[in-house]
Amino acid sequence: MEVTRKNFQSVLPEVEKAIAESDFLSVDTEFSGLHASSSYYISPLDTPEERYQKLRKGSCDFLVFQVGLCTFCFNKENNKYEARPFNFYVFPRPYSRAAPDCRFMCQSSSIDFLASQNFDFNKVFKEGIPYLTSTQESQLKDSLEEKHKQYNLFSSPAFVTPDSGAEAVTTKGPINIPEEHKDFIEGICKTVQEFLDKEGEETLSLPPCNGFVRKLIYQTVKQRFQSGIHLAAKTDEKKQRFIVVTRIKSEDDMKIKEQEKQAAELAEVEGAVGFSKVIRMITHSEKLVVGHNMFMDVIHLLHRFCSPLPENYLEFKALTTCIFPKLLDTKLMANTTPCKEFLPNTVLGDLLKHISCSPFEKPEIVFPENFPQYKLDDSNLHEAAYDAFITGMCFIGMSNFLGNKKDPPVSNVSPDDSVVKPFTNKLFLMRVPEIPYLDLAADDVLPNREHIFHVTFPKEWKAPDLYQLFSPFGNVNIQWLDDTSAFVSLYKKEQSSSGVHHPSPSQYQHIITGKRDVTMLSSDKKVSIIPHQTKRCPSSLTKSISTYNNGQERCYKVKFRQNLMH
Amino acid sequence: MEVTRKNFQSVLPEVEKAIAESDFLSVDTEFSGLHASSSYYISPLDTPEERYQKLRKGSCDFLVFQVGLCTFCFNKENNKYEARPFNFYVFPRPYSRAAPDCRFMCQSSSIDFLASQNFDFNKVFKEGIPYLTSTQESQLKDSLEEKHKQYNLFSSPAFVTPDSGAEAVTTKGPINIPEEHKDFIEGICKTVQEFLDKEGEETLSLPPCNGFVRKLIYQTVKQRFQSGIHLAAKTDEKKQRFIVVTRIKSEDDMKIKEQEKQAAELAEVEGAVGFSKVIRMITHSEKLVVGHNMFMDVIHLLHRFCSPLPENYLEFKALTTCIFPKLLDTKLMANTTPCKEFLPNTVLGDLLKHISCSPFEKPEIVFPENFPQYKLDDSNLHEAAYDAFITGMCFIGMSNFLGNKKDPPVSNVSPDDSVVKPFTNKLFLMRVPEIPYLDLAADDVLPNREHIFHVTFPKEWKAPDLYQLFSPFGNVNIQWLDDTSAFVSLYKKEQSSSGVHHPSPSQYQHIITGKRDVTMLSSDKKVSIIPHQTKRCPSSLTKSISTYNNGQERCYKVKFRQNLMH
Repeated sequence: MEVTRKNFQSVLPEVEKAIAESDFLSVDTEFSGLHASSSYYISPLDTPEERYQKLRKGSCDFLVFQVGLCTFCFNKENNKYEARPFNFYVFPRPYSRAAPDCRFMCQSSSIDFLASQNFDFNKVFKEGIPYLTSTQESQLKDSLEEKHKQYNLFSSPAFVTPDSGAEAVTTKGPINIPEEHKDFIEGICKTVQEFLDKEGEETLSLPPCNGFVRKLIYQTVKQRFQSGIHLAAKTDEKKQRFIVVTRIKSEDDMKIKEQEKQAAELAEVEGAVGFSKVIRMITHSEKLVVGHNMFMDVIHLLHRFCSPLPENYLEFKALTTCIFPKLLDTKLMANTTPCKEFLPNTVLGDLLKHISCSPFEKPEIVFPENFPQYKLDDSNLHEAAYDAFITGMCFIGMSNFLGNKKDPPVSNVSPDDSVVKPFTNKLFLMRVPEIPYLDLAADDVLPNREHIFHVTFPKEWKAPDLYQLFSPFGNVNIQWLDDTSAFVSLYKKEQSSSGVHHPSPSQYQHIITGKRDVTMLSSDKKVSIIPHQTKRCPSSLTKSISTYNNGQERCYKVKFRQNLMH
Repeated sequence: MEVTRKNFQSVLPEVEKAIAESDFLSVDTEFSGLHASSSYYISPLDTPEERYQKLRKGSCDFLVFQVGLCTFCFNKENNKYEARPFNFYVFPRPYSRAAPDCRFMCQSSSIDFLASQNFDFNKVFKEGIPYLTSTQESQLKDSLEEKHKQYNLFSSPAFVTPDSGAEAVTTKGPINIPEEHKDFIEGICKTVQEFLDKEGEETLSLPPCNGFVRKLIYQTVKQRFQSGIHLAAKTDEKKQRFIVVTRIKSEDDMKIKEQEKQAAELAEVEGAVGFSKVIRMITHSEKLVVGHNMFMDVIHLLHRFCSPLPENYLEFKALTTCIFPKLLDTKLMANTTPCKEFLPNTVLGDLLKHISCSPFEKPEIVFPENFPQYKLDDSNLHEAAYDAFITGMCFIGMSNFLGNKKDPPVSNVSPDDSVVKPFTNKLFLMRVPEIPYLDLAADDVLPNREHIFHVTFPKEWKAPDLYQLFSPFGNVNIQWLDDTSAFVSLYKKEQSSSGVHHPSPSQYQHIITGKRDVTMLSSDKKVSIIPHQTKRCPSSLTKSISTYNNGQERCYKVKFRQNLMH
């Protein structure tokens, strides 16, 4: 079901009901970009913490355009799952001129990708559901309350600068009316006088004009007509601002008008919370939330709809568990034995095809009447709700497959089943062969990486130079990072262990100075070798041992990093 | 005329002809945002250089979505102007995986504004014309030539990583095929063998697969089949990448295929220059280019289609004059006597209404058949081509008005007329009452601002505190910057001049320590007063004189800044 600003309020109760009745939920998001710059590209040697920091710094400025939510409910009577997919278009439209005016980033290739999938950008920007994080919501409510308190204290709205735009200068006193505006302002005063003299109309709309002129009108008209009128700025459909003058019969009338206005302003903030309410419903339900390769989705869902992402990695884990008490990543399930053995490829679209045939069993799905009756023909692939839906399908397929292997076999596995448990609260780490997941509920499992070294070298070096450099330690695997750096892993891991073969700093120096023909290196070209520690963190201690040979032709640095947290 | 990627190539000659035949051109742009953050908001006391730096740092990450270009040609026979408006949708779509993948910013309020004007975002993102700056173009051509040279030297395309995506790791040697991919790669080799055995088809398209698998295919297939085949990666309409195998009959055949491929790659870059060609045509024509409040437009046109903006302000002036040898800002014309006297408002839409009636005379316009026959009813306002068109109208209206005042009067003023000259190569400075323009062709005219002071103070201070602080110098005007800073101008300018009344640092100390009841100030709340120099630049010398009274309750700093460039 497509949900935009137009039908959001009316659909919200249905969303709440679907979540409450479900056995589990699945989610997916579409966003405006992936990586702010190449420094945030993922690496196969990222630790979970490093990956988190890369996503936090390099991906959070992108916007979520679409959130897919699909609820699944198993019907024992007909052995079918009922799926209710919701496709939310979301956009942080400033609901008023006091609202946050979000700046966000887009990546051309991502936009182009969405365009090629026939994504409707007009729907996002014109009909996207607004949202606020909890932090933004309380700030806005606080500042409104403060403004209302001020008003009630001083009852002088003229200088509250009711519509100071972004560029408006804070006004703390009356402005002198510039010569060129005097005629216009006088004309306005005359119009207001005529409106007051002639009983009948309740309100008078003044012509649209710019912020400065509106300020002049506020100031002058308030001064001339005192308590006889009430002024408020409004926006027409063309985004032009204009002032509405309302006749005030008595002081009480004025108060009522102002109270109405204040109530409306609070309601406006309430409405602006928008899509974030759906996330709050999910949190409240404590239902299992399933996603496919969902690390980035989780990052965006938290950052946009809940709270700015914490710098501290452990706080991130705590925040995630607080918002989504039970998460499951189907990409992790698919990449773990025994499912893995039967899945040559775990890209979402392909995964669906694999779980639709033996040894898996395609789950039977029904959709309620007012929901899209998805066909599994890829035509909706990359629509968030469809992707969420097939993620749920894959979850059912794989957990039933695991259930069948139990003794005795379980045919319709519940999300609480013991075969599902090992996968909960773990986020798949894409392209990190050694560390399959980030563990939200426990310390991360980190492999020994003492046999991996970060090497920097002159641009002219090719693989044979590196092979030669490491030749005393047998064969190596080279992971190129760029033209002047690479991770080099020893095939024989024990070479680097703390046993007899562990290379000491002096051994490295020996390798370099003893083995390399270094006449090609000028003095400004350095070779450095740093053991790749499993936990490379800012608090790591760096011990540097530098050897400068006599003569300008040779210059090396060998750095060893010991980890304080190790 | 609407121009997108679909018709750009065919319309380009028509654009060139329209420019060549015109008397002058007008331009307008629509962009994705205005200011990256509040630190770049414009201030009424900005110098032209400061304004430039604010726009350069705070606006250049936004994208141009639409460029309007309107050519005007006066027909002496019927006394009418022929206007040809072109509305270009532009988007830096990466034309290939080697092309720059631009990250750009959007501002929610700007997007929302465009949405309210019914702007078609889908057209931008799906059909926008690509573009490259000259810098990008030469980089891409150089790297292609280098790649081709490498290929021709080694004839070994397998390791040239023909489609290394953004995240791909530089590959300098063969990769070991992981266990899980061995079956798939073997299958591919079998398919290729069958294709080679069976004469007939010229090419074979392999199934889409990810970058890593494609790399494995390249490597294995090239090794097995050597010179018998040629491989190239292509992208299908769903953005999926796949490899096309072409049968090679002889070494010459192979060379021809490769030459065709290389020529196609160069043509691709040529095509990617796209919209930038239009700007080059404008430059080449040396025609007068008219815009309304065009500083931001100029910034974006240079930055996106020509060259990154120089840090140095004088270089910016030089670059602008190089790209647009003759510029004219109608907002400056409208804000200058004598036009100014008859124009209560110079916002574009209103300006058009003003110049359509006495004492101005509305120019008569005709549109060629295949162009939109614009009605002047505001319905197209904020479409770039329409805005460019009415900007041109306003220019004609105002210059004819000025021509009429000449002795003898000139009725159809040419863009080279002496009444137009004073306005050329000057950019209007929005909201800077004292400095009407930035002068591209000469040193900027900067007013004396010795009577203006930048004051910082505790948050609790209100206007009366500042009035009291400056009371020895008579009345002041306060320009609030935020809660703790303001510009304060003395009404009596001579008070601050170098004459007898010039306040010395000690006088300021006297003002502050002598006049203020400072018990409200705690030790960490400082008051500082800095004369506002007309040229505040990084090289300015700051002299600080600090006085700490005994007792923790009082602490002030009075800073005087002298300008080295003064």
